[in-house]
Amino acid sequence: MSRLDQQIAFIQEIEKLKTVTRYNMTLDHGRAENSAEHSWHVALMAMLLYEHKGELDVDLARAIKMLLIHDLVEIGIGDTFLYDEAGRAGAHEKEAASLKRLMTFLPEDQALEISELWNEFEARETDTAKYAASLDGLQPLTNHAVTAPDGRNPHHLTVDRVYDKKSFIKDYVPDLWPAVTESVDICKAKKVFD
Amino acid sequence: MSRLDQQIAFIQEIEKLKTVTRYNMTLDHGRAENSAEHSWHVALMAMLLYEHKGELDVDLARAIKMLLIHDLVEIGIGDTFLYDEAGRAGAHEKEAASLKRLMTFLPEDQALEISELWNEFEARETDTAKYAASLDGLQPLTNHAVTAPDGRNPHHLTVDRVYDKKSFIKDYVPDLWPAVTESVDICKAKKVFD
Repeated sequence: MSRLDQQIAFIQEIEKLKTVTRYNMTLDHGRAENSAEHSWHVALMAMLLYEHKGELDVDLARAIKMLLIHDLVEIGIGDTFLYDEAGRAGAHEKEAASLKRLMTFLPEDQALEISELWNEFEARETDTAKYAASLDGLQPLTNHAVTAPDGRNPHHLTVDRVYDKKSFIKDYVPDLWPAVTESVDICKAKKVFD
Repeated sequence: MSRLDQQIAFIQEIEKLKTVTRYNMTLDHGRAENSAEHSWHVALMAMLLYEHKGELDVDLARAIKMLLIHDLVEIGIGDTFLYDEAGRAGAHEKEAASLKRLMTFLPEDQALEISELWNEFEARETDTAKYAASLDGLQPLTNHAVTAPDGRNPHHLTVDRVYDKKSFIKDYVPDLWPAVTESVDICKAKKVFD
């Protein structure tokens, strides 16, 4: 197979990310958001919110690439809901195995590039990964504030629990924190968080 | 409103792109692909297929940004099917008006940045725009080859008509042309193109 053939086979394989649904919803008659749409949204947010990075030394192009690929690992195994503690326990290992399988489609140098991006994103050690992870944490809140039907809180999420999961955003990108608190306030007023 | 408030309002407004459906389908039980998913796919393709740019002088980060924003104009007016000649006649003007409305959400400097990206993409004059436009032309074909149900060709698309619309890819990024012809061959074998 030529490199182009390998790349196209991969591009066709990742078509499957559009079938991986999330807890969040869309404005599309209550359809669940999928991880491909989410990835688009969060990559665009990286571009729009860059000025709020504060003291972080962020490589914006790298952050965008990271966000475009960060959920590919969900192909075949699905998204793990942030508040599903039992499910999240083994999630990283399952995702790493999924990445390994996906990378067999690509030429080695590109498999390495994408694996490095994903590992960097997951580790949240570099400033670029901290910025990207903060957007990945913020998007479900800004989305939920506009898409969740009033009063719908099937998982009994509480404001305290949400803040507990999202507090890293305050540490990494403090300038974005008001967007978190405003979204949480809206969700509380809509009774989608208790 | 603070800049952050304006940006978040815009980020929430573009949630609507997930409700703009395209002619293409997904693997998700025959659901129509939407323009947000398509934008994710094509931005990731820009990253993966960069080595095939040939003699074009492509700014990859700019190409990715262009592809992330290129379909935002469809919010409120919908996607215009490539082969709908009557619909396409006034599409650019409608899209430009839609862009103008959307840009009122953003701080002026960012409205200018995104408008410039969109205008550059539409004009297809720069090498970066030619590369981005080629991926936007290729993605529906690689997608169609895997998502279209055998024998489904409601618009009676013919191979000649498809090549007529896609020939610009051969001119702009000749190294990607085999991916076009292979996808068209698959679509023909599946009888989704006549």
